[in-house]
Amino acid sequence: MESFIEIPEGSYYPLENIPYSTGHVRGGDQAHCLTRVGNTIVDLTFLEQIGILKTEKALFNTQTLNKFMSESREIWQSIRSQIQNLLRSDNQELQSSEHKTQALASLEEVQLSMPVNIGDYTDFYSSKNHAYNVGVMFRGPENALQPNWTRMPIGYHGRSSSVVVGGNVIRPRGQVCPPGGEPSFSICKKLDYELEIGCFVGGKTNDMGKSIDIADAYNNIFGIVLLNDWSARDIQAWEYIPLGPFTAKNFMTSISPWIVTLEALAPFKVPLEPQNPVPFPYLQDPDLFSYDIALKTFLKVPENDNTLISTSNMKYLYWSITQQLVHHTVTGCNMRPGDLLGSGTISGPTEDSLGCLLEISLNGKKPLQLPNGQQRTFLNDGDVLTIVGECKGNGFTIGLELPSAVVLPAVQDKYV
Amino acid sequence: MESFIEIPEGSYYPLENIPYSTGHVRGGDQAHCLTRVGNTIVDLTFLEQIGILKTEKALFNTQTLNKFMSESREIWQSIRSQIQNLLRSDNQELQSSEHKTQALASLEEVQLSMPVNIGDYTDFYSSKNHAYNVGVMFRGPENALQPNWTRMPIGYHGRSSSVVVGGNVIRPRGQVCPPGGEPSFSICKKLDYELEIGCFVGGKTNDMGKSIDIADAYNNIFGIVLLNDWSARDIQAWEYIPLGPFTAKNFMTSISPWIVTLEALAPFKVPLEPQNPVPFPYLQDPDLFSYDIALKTFLKVPENDNTLISTSNMKYLYWSITQQLVHHTVTGCNMRPGDLLGSGTISGPTEDSLGCLLEISLNGKKPLQLPNGQQRTFLNDGDVLTIVGECKGNGFTIGLELPSAVVLPAVQDKYV
Repeated sequence: MESFIEIPEGSYYPLENIPYSTGHVRGGDQAHCLTRVGNTIVDLTFLEQIGILKTEKALFNTQTLNKFMSESREIWQSIRSQIQNLLRSDNQELQSSEHKTQALASLEEVQLSMPVNIGDYTDFYSSKNHAYNVGVMFRGPENALQPNWTRMPIGYHGRSSSVVVGGNVIRPRGQVCPPGGEPSFSICKKLDYELEIGCFVGGKTNDMGKSIDIADAYNNIFGIVLLNDWSARDIQAWEYIPLGPFTAKNFMTSISPWIVTLEALAPFKVPLEPQNPVPFPYLQDPDLFSYDIALKTFLKVPENDNTLISTSNMKYLYWSITQQLVHHTVTGCNMRPGDLLGSGTISGPTEDSLGCLLEISLNGKKPLQLPNGQQRTFLNDGDVLTIVGECKGNGFTIGLELPSAVVLPAVQDKYV
Repeated sequence: MESFIEIPEGSYYPLENIPYSTGHVRGGDQAHCLTRVGNTIVDLTFLEQIGILKTEKALFNTQTLNKFMSESREIWQSIRSQIQNLLRSDNQELQSSEHKTQALASLEEVQLSMPVNIGDYTDFYSSKNHAYNVGVMFRGPENALQPNWTRMPIGYHGRSSSVVVGGNVIRPRGQVCPPGGEPSFSICKKLDYELEIGCFVGGKTNDMGKSIDIADAYNNIFGIVLLNDWSARDIQAWEYIPLGPFTAKNFMTSISPWIVTLEALAPFKVPLEPQNPVPFPYLQDPDLFSYDIALKTFLKVPENDNTLISTSNMKYLYWSITQQLVHHTVTGCNMRPGDLLGSGTISGPTEDSLGCLLEISLNGKKPLQLPNGQQRTFLNDGDVLTIVGECKGNGFTIGLELPSAVVLPAVQDKYV
């Protein structure tokens, strides 16, 4: 697909992508709904206002994507096609319009904002490699996987207030306790990232007391982002029994700004292996799938170059995103458009495809070797983490980018 | 304090209360902010519109209390005093106003609504009796309390979408598994209630990366409600390791409609016993307190009268509401006005002061004896649960009411 907008070779934003976000264009007070092609941002709110983008009811006259997300897959597909057509080189409607200059903006002219009002954020634990690796560390290989793990997508509720687009992370402080030792109040010494995919719920969702059927789940997923569930491993180890991670996770969760739709990902759909044991009928999806998205994590430590430390892939999920959504609602929990479901750390089967430093460094026992003799067990102040996702298509690439995040030192005060 | 509005003897809504809620008055499209005196509802949105209630900026021209809650304790106190003065028998301003009829409504004329847009809901585990009792059942008396329990208010993130005002509960379905047995998909057979107090966060809250100091915590709590965290015990037992309760809790959480402010509760403040071990400095509150609120649970089973099955009290909390709030933010989690913090089930030290059927029936081993020879281990379809909280003052009572909830049968379909 050719556009009249320049798309640099290898850009993550070809016409085949058409991701959605929000932001302030040229200093505007109100955030607008946006898409991106190459390095050009397209103002959908403006295009709808002037009638070039035709919507039956106003979908983009708001500061978040929730309204658009609450529509149906048919509407999403129709709007996507319309946008792709408007941006094609053989279409003059926008290309030759007097409004073109105002409708388009360079990256520098736009301040991206949180694209979704997230009602609830949930985090799953859907990578078998990750669950197994972590289980081995804490319980040994025989008891690595809990008996419930292969029966349902294990998950827990997260904190929506601290989900942000990108952003530097401040090292947290909290309670820690070595095994069998005495607890103390300390600066976190095991700050970690977690490489995840986040799904945004959309469409007409279920009322409280009803469940989403597996046959309908696909149409209740709008699109995906990269997600980094920052984790304080030392705080987590002390607090998580019996009610799960709490302050070890709720200080920050970062997502990539552009939401990539399932339509854009369709060419990269891959089947998942049949699950054993066979799940209960409510979780049986005849079209069990994930996406082939290479997930690359880069770490830059002071006085060193940016280094690729891991390449995982969304196809390494055991529980699919539809199964996660269905299980979430099995007892009747109502979902809302804009809810965010994290996949949990996605680790592959090999040493170079692990999704967090806890696994890479075996909880600190085996430091990660970096160029110039540097090494890391967990993150140091000043380290910079970057995550990208890449889908290589036939002549185009669709990508996701979690902006570089710097680890900032902990707050120092009378308590620590 | 005498009002020109009739206040029946023993009413939970004397002039000393002035709780807040929202609702549709006489079929109005928009919900209004409300208070209640006796059996009369007072329309604060309307009183503000016509200038009888004087606010520096509009606080009640919205459908939820979030705006008002985001103000300061000083503003909350000043508005409370103003409302109390307007309703006194010796004040003619509203009493003799042409607008009086429109400003007041009977209970029947008002459809109450969810008073707060809850950003995040968190549930703690702050009653030592409850944590101990549950621990004994699952791990024996020596290991009943986890070592972290006396060091911090253990909590976990809950689901905000399914927090509702009152409401009947639909029995959930989900995965269950007897210890050492085979899992199955089943209708929940151990449906339970959990008697809790919910705190609504208010005031100027902390930015992400900062914590709320214990000295400031009181001013970040707007008021309280009764909270019933409905729980599917059989589903919970199978799913909760290692990430905590998830689908066993997220199908419904009920709160009482009227938020009682800390100002109204001030006469009922009681000190908590010094904590042993002494908590870390960030949790040390020189004014460690709770409130003396008798918490009564009534169960009505078919062909029986309503029966008081337990009388607990908010004073039985071990971790205070200020400690819960501070610990929640210790790693830097940002709070927002309208966030809801549940205390966890509050149980007293005696058999008649337990806060859930899991404890009352010893997980089904010792059925609760009801009049006419009936008994219960957990809730049956058709059972009706009612919870009230009572503060007995000098010549007045302040109360909270969680409306009667009926247990409705589970959905039946192709899966169960």
